[in-house]
Amino acid sequence: MNDKNKNKILVTGDRPTGNLHLGHYVGTLQNRIELQDSYNCFFLIADLHMLTTHQDKVGDLKENIVELVIDWMSVGLDPKKSCFYLQSMIPEISELAVLLSMLCSVPRIQRIPTLKEKITAMNLNDNYSLGLLSYPVLMASDILAFNASTVPVGEDQLSHVELTREIARRFNSTYKEILLEPEPLISKNSRLVGTDGQGKMSKSLNNSIYLCDSESVVKKKVMKMFTDPNRTSADIPGKVEGNPVFIYHDIFNDNKEELLDFKERYSKGKIGDVEVKTSLVRSINNFLDPIREKRMEILKNKEEILDIIIEGSKKAREITKINLELIKEAMSLKLK
Amino acid sequence: MNDKNKNKILVTGDRPTGNLHLGHYVGTLQNRIELQDSYNCFFLIADLHMLTTHQDKVGDLKENIVELVIDWMSVGLDPKKSCFYLQSMIPEISELAVLLSMLCSVPRIQRIPTLKEKITAMNLNDNYSLGLLSYPVLMASDILAFNASTVPVGEDQLSHVELTREIARRFNSTYKEILLEPEPLISKNSRLVGTDGQGKMSKSLNNSIYLCDSESVVKKKVMKMFTDPNRTSADIPGKVEGNPVFIYHDIFNDNKEELLDFKERYSKGKIGDVEVKTSLVRSINNFLDPIREKRMEILKNKEEILDIIIEGSKKAREITKINLELIKEAMSLKLK
Repeated sequence: MNDKNKNKILVTGDRPTGNLHLGHYVGTLQNRIELQDSYNCFFLIADLHMLTTHQDKVGDLKENIVELVIDWMSVGLDPKKSCFYLQSMIPEISELAVLLSMLCSVPRIQRIPTLKEKITAMNLNDNYSLGLLSYPVLMASDILAFNASTVPVGEDQLSHVELTREIARRFNSTYKEILLEPEPLISKNSRLVGTDGQGKMSKSLNNSIYLCDSESVVKKKVMKMFTDPNRTSADIPGKVEGNPVFIYHDIFNDNKEELLDFKERYSKGKIGDVEVKTSLVRSINNFLDPIREKRMEILKNKEEILDIIIEGSKKAREITKINLELIKEAMSLKLK
Repeated sequence: MNDKNKNKILVTGDRPTGNLHLGHYVGTLQNRIELQDSYNCFFLIADLHMLTTHQDKVGDLKENIVELVIDWMSVGLDPKKSCFYLQSMIPEISELAVLLSMLCSVPRIQRIPTLKEKITAMNLNDNYSLGLLSYPVLMASDILAFNASTVPVGEDQLSHVELTREIARRFNSTYKEILLEPEPLISKNSRLVGTDGQGKMSKSLNNSIYLCDSESVVKKKVMKMFTDPNRTSADIPGKVEGNPVFIYHDIFNDNKEELLDFKERYSKGKIGDVEVKTSLVRSINNFLDPIREKRMEILKNKEEILDIIIEGSKKAREITKINLELIKEAMSLKLK
């Protein structure tokens, strides 16, 4: 265990929009499992961010919040090591978001690529909500409310940290030098292709293998996976590079010898898809088995999950309260 | 005293940007003095709204907050009858603003005439802050955090109440029928022309007579007041209608006989400006004298002002806390 960053606050989190999948594991969870041993980690359940795109779909929200925490714990995130907290239970995040909104221009926000992508994906044209437009500033507030030093991100999320750093600088030069400019910690594997081979694994694209999927569901999904589209029969030489089945094999198959053999035969047209996929089903199920076991353990005390969130949110507020006091004082918003 | 509205919550307020003037008195304060006897009044010191346009001018903020309350009390607003509170001391207002931002589109906000006016007046073109764009939703939150039934407004502020009503309807249809659609209470005299006769009395236009102006300052300002520009000497018949000096006379001169005589002689070119203005100086000073006396009284215990604000803010939060709980529950944002 590396202790040198233990006094550094790290903030990251997920929107509670449904169960997590292998893409989340590869992109962020795997990384977090290591980080929680070396940083002072705050893991955000971002329900307010969920509302920026799903404001009318709150029926499953509570269940999704609980499921998110179960997913986290099932892969080894540990509420004893890290703080799990619910965004809407930290009023300071909203308060700070309102204050920071004064320091950031609308055109600056509109230039953020992921915001543009969301607006395009939702077919909103110019008719997006103020909440959606504001989410990058809310994200800055998520980070600055903790005066976090570190934010793990994929390449595609770098622009959010950049905006946060800009807002921190603006605050410091306008009021008082009290906000840290958070450093991005860029993860190597930030995207996993979906089972359809068409793009990032994503709930909305129906191309995901979930951490909670059963063995038989994993089998069904893998057997239907996209491979090399030009390889219409087993004796045609296939492409290994960029082939989703081999991307997954590289990640989840520990038998590197077998994998080398598969790749060689695949590129020569000497192996059927079924053999490659059957092995992948086994590898993914081997990977998921301890996660499934852990999940079963957690489910025995499912009613404790809410307490974990409530306790974590209390702990998180101890920090955000102090920071917001300092921020308000710097802005002359403190009467006494 | 009319008690029939005493259970109705009324919300209104001012931005703490400097001392109040006769325009404020005529437009809003006069009205509030009556309203505080018939409604459950909440008077907002809108420091967050101040930040939407003056985010880098916080040096005088605390003094301006205290001065605002002194101005209020000097005209007869009474913290024993009504609740005076500071916006930034009510976290629920910011929390609710974030939630309501999900229910309101950016183009809808951009259509608000007073927002457009502010953007034009500040020469911002499209480069305004997110805070400025968001102020109408913050205003909706000011009102809905109290589930207020009544909002006194001038004609020019009607669009804010209309937006608030729309957001309340959107909330009610999306989640649960719990928000009142506030009714605007339109004041008759919402604008007083400035001493330059060019437009509304306004601090930034340097055309104001302040409630705290001394007798000699009032004299100086009135003697320099704009009258009928075509009347270059006392024997030229002048225009009474629309003439700022007579607009002020109509409001502040209780001697209606004298005023009738002035108007008649003025329109016949039989009175000098000095006579009309000297009388107006007397009238305004007569009007301001009890306000000045009250101010002197208040200043003896100036240190109590902060306590009035802190106590009022506590009282205000008793209501906003309950309302925000209900709102969050309706949005499924309550865990337990």
